[in-house]
Amino acid sequence: MPTPSEPTRVSDLQTPALIVDRPGLDANLRAMDAVLPGTKLRPHVKAFKSTALAARLAADGHTGFCAATPKEVEGLVSAGLGEDILLANESLDIARLGALRDSANITVAVDSEATIDAAALGNIESVLIDVEVGLPRCGCDVADAGRLADLARSRGLIVRGVMGYEGHLMMVDDRRERTERVEQAMADLLMAAEAVGGDVVSGGGTGTFDTNTWCTEIQAGSYTLMDTHYDGLDLPFAPTCFIQATVISVSAKGWVVIDAGLKSLGMDHGDPSWGHGDVFFCSDEHTTLVPTDESTWSVGDTTTITPAHIDPTVAKHEAMWVVENGKIVDRWDIDLRHW
Amino acid sequence: MPTPSEPTRVSDLQTPALIVDRPGLDANLRAMDAVLPGTKLRPHVKAFKSTALAARLAADGHTGFCAATPKEVEGLVSAGLGEDILLANESLDIARLGALRDSANITVAVDSEATIDAAALGNIESVLIDVEVGLPRCGCDVADAGRLADLARSRGLIVRGVMGYEGHLMMVDDRRERTERVEQAMADLLMAAEAVGGDVVSGGGTGTFDTNTWCTEIQAGSYTLMDTHYDGLDLPFAPTCFIQATVISVSAKGWVVIDAGLKSLGMDHGDPSWGHGDVFFCSDEHTTLVPTDESTWSVGDTTTITPAHIDPTVAKHEAMWVVENGKIVDRWDIDLRHW
Repeated sequence: MPTPSEPTRVSDLQTPALIVDRPGLDANLRAMDAVLPGTKLRPHVKAFKSTALAARLAADGHTGFCAATPKEVEGLVSAGLGEDILLANESLDIARLGALRDSANITVAVDSEATIDAAALGNIESVLIDVEVGLPRCGCDVADAGRLADLARSRGLIVRGVMGYEGHLMMVDDRRERTERVEQAMADLLMAAEAVGGDVVSGGGTGTFDTNTWCTEIQAGSYTLMDTHYDGLDLPFAPTCFIQATVISVSAKGWVVIDAGLKSLGMDHGDPSWGHGDVFFCSDEHTTLVPTDESTWSVGDTTTITPAHIDPTVAKHEAMWVVENGKIVDRWDIDLRHW
Repeated sequence: MPTPSEPTRVSDLQTPALIVDRPGLDANLRAMDAVLPGTKLRPHVKAFKSTALAARLAADGHTGFCAATPKEVEGLVSAGLGEDILLANESLDIARLGALRDSANITVAVDSEATIDAAALGNIESVLIDVEVGLPRCGCDVADAGRLADLARSRGLIVRGVMGYEGHLMMVDDRRERTERVEQAMADLLMAAEAVGGDVVSGGGTGTFDTNTWCTEIQAGSYTLMDTHYDGLDLPFAPTCFIQATVISVSAKGWVVIDAGLKSLGMDHGDPSWGHGDVFFCSDEHTTLVPTDESTWSVGDTTTITPAHIDPTVAKHEAMWVVENGKIVDRWDIDLRHW
């Protein structure tokens, strides 16, 4: 809960501010729990970068987490959420995680001899063999997974299984096509799992949370807050995180300027959306809006815009304000930022 | 200078890291000083968000600064750089700046009755009338500038003059066309200045620093660090700020993955550039590169990419590492972030 000196109404917030609608968030969490209860879901903290939200998910039974950076792992451990953390990413800066071995259960992804060396030298206990399943990014060839698993075991590492991220399929619009292509990608991953051994097959994301039925656990995080890009799919999650902004200028020529610009928004998926009309353009500290409904705007009014990509949006803010019926009910530090 | 516990070689940096090439920065500063010495330039801190770099500019004689957010103004004042700060932006959250009136000389931009009210009620001493000169963003109509100046004076505010930002002309490729269009925009601003009074005509930016010869002071900041977007113009400044990254995965299929992704890059002007080949795509924590030269890459190698838009890139980092000949010679906090 906010301290007395903190704002208690959304309209009192210094802007731009990141706000989260609690009822909407609760609905997203319920929709996910209905399909992937407990450790069937391994929430990916890269999407929301807040141990407060992670603790909420752990309380719901999702006690294993995914992270993308060493900093996220360290933060989860500091917050007492170290029961089963997967650094689902290659890193050579992992001796800092090996140093946490006594206080947490940390597994890291490896996809090469060099990353296996780093894990062994860094005093890491467990690894997953990361397999490339179609996304041109990290991951070994399917055919090389068994050899790397053997190498890892020879270096004293516990090989828990495999992971493979079908990130290129998250945004396939048509559910049938998405399901078919996920099945093909997961056939590769299961072939690698056969060669690797272990009992973990980790993969998936918000876009494939229910079409990827082959993994033992799904790595999804964006479903909590959502964004306009994911909202175009047929998912049972809705955007629940917005930028609160103040109107600072109104032109007789028909546009309205707010004090939230691209420094408070992830822009790689394009402009944010506005419920009252068009987003003309974003600049560093401004967004110029053009109302297309009957609304009228005055300097000092507040409004919200919805980001197109939630993960990098969250990473630009220091805190999320949790809101219900226009009142601030909590403040969540975005304490897992940076690297 | 870094303390002994900090890295002293670029290759020791935790990645991704923001690095600044000191000789390149020095050259950019000299090129600007040759055209706009002293207070002819009012450096815009929104581009680099660091009081350390601002102090360097002040030492060179650029003692007046521009800011885009109240937080930037507060930071400049805290750092003892409050001789003449212009908040070149509309804000209703300015009572926090009025509270600094005794320790700094702060001027704010106003473009409406509401922003004049906020300045007067917020105990601000001085204002500029912000005039729209073609960019669809803040700024009053030219024809309304005199009335607003009168209103501001009637509220006890000192009206120092006008500002008008020709941001829509920064990226006009052809110098002749750029010069002609800047002249037209500034004709509007000078007309407003006539009606407003005062001795300040503030405007311009990195793209028009030498073609805008009508303003009494130019608001440029990106020239210090530059980016690939500005680098396409005919300016005497070169990119000097880069993302240092580590190769974390190399695919037999021909791509190389580094640990710097779109959470460490401003993406609104598109992908970053890489000196050894193509940028395939950026994701949150990764960039996939495809070498097109003779270079070969191994996991653990380091490389740099150049951002397409420097201002939002800087805003994503906690510090800039100042580098010369591969050695770290300074660490500059990016202490003017957020709002």
